Amino acid sequence: MQNTYFQSIESLPSGRSLPLNEVIDKLAFNEQGLIPVITQDATSKDVLMMAWMNKTALDKTLTTGRMVYWSRSRDELWEKGLTSGHTQELVNMTFDCDGDAILCQVNQIGAACHTGRPNCFYLEVNKELNQVQIIGSSQ
Amino acid sequence: MQNTYFQSIESLPSGRSLPLNEVIDKLAFNEQGLIPVITQDATSKDVLMMAWMNKTALDKTLTTGRMVYWSRSRDELWEKGLTSGHTQELVNMTFDCDGDAILCQVNQIGAACHTGRPNCFYLEVNKELNQVQIIGSSQ
Repeated sequence: MQNTYFQSIESLPSGRSLPLNEVIDKLAFNEQGLIPVITQDATSKDVLMMAWMNKTALDKTLTTGRMVYWSRSRDELWEKGLTSGHTQELVNMTFDCDGDAILCQVNQIGAACHTGRPNCFYLEVNKELNQVQIIGSSQ
Repeated sequence: MQNTYFQSIESLPSGRSLPLNEVIDKLAFNEQGLIPVITQDATSKDVLMMAWMNKTALDKTLTTGRMVYWSRSRDELWEKGLTSGHTQELVNMTFDCDGDAILCQVNQIGAACHTGRPNCFYLEVNKELNQVQIIGSSQ
């Protein structure tokens, strides 16, 4: 999506800073008020999961330092690991050039995936065999 | 989102395979026919960008081995790097546990971001200072 605010700042020099509230106000939350969030292990750099935040979840994540998402299936705020204990401690957060995606690097306690696998991307495409292979066991 | 197909396969043992076409047919393309795609550098493991694919873009990516997205701003198929030369060669593709996100590891030629920066996530949050800092210069 075109976003004139993010276009206007893309030529700023490295190191220049902008007010956090100003940038958050310009993020491209979709028609449901949500923005996609990529969660990456800060140490291994494995991509753990993709989920969604609304502005409240984003604010709570920044305030508490723990990842809080918006659950689209339960239609409620979802503090990751509140029931499972598999919490995620925020290490670093970046926004992308169009302001329509957030990348969070975290310290992951336990398994990121609800199946018990270390991350959610366990269905691997094998193009040559036209198959998808399960990587890792559920627990 | 709940997806009964992906729920039904989550307990399959590691190594079990499923037909690729069957899995793709069950992916949770949204109401615009799109699914979010995370693109990660296969070597550095840096997250380069987040974009979207429709089924045609997914098929073309798998067939050609080069990343093809759906451009929501131009409303057309977008073969990454066709004009800039900054192509992405697909190394590995995985789907997530809910079938609503795709992770692609790629060999990136040149800069992933249209600003000339190596990746799109160059707006870094500094919680303590309530600022967002620009990381790297545009070209």
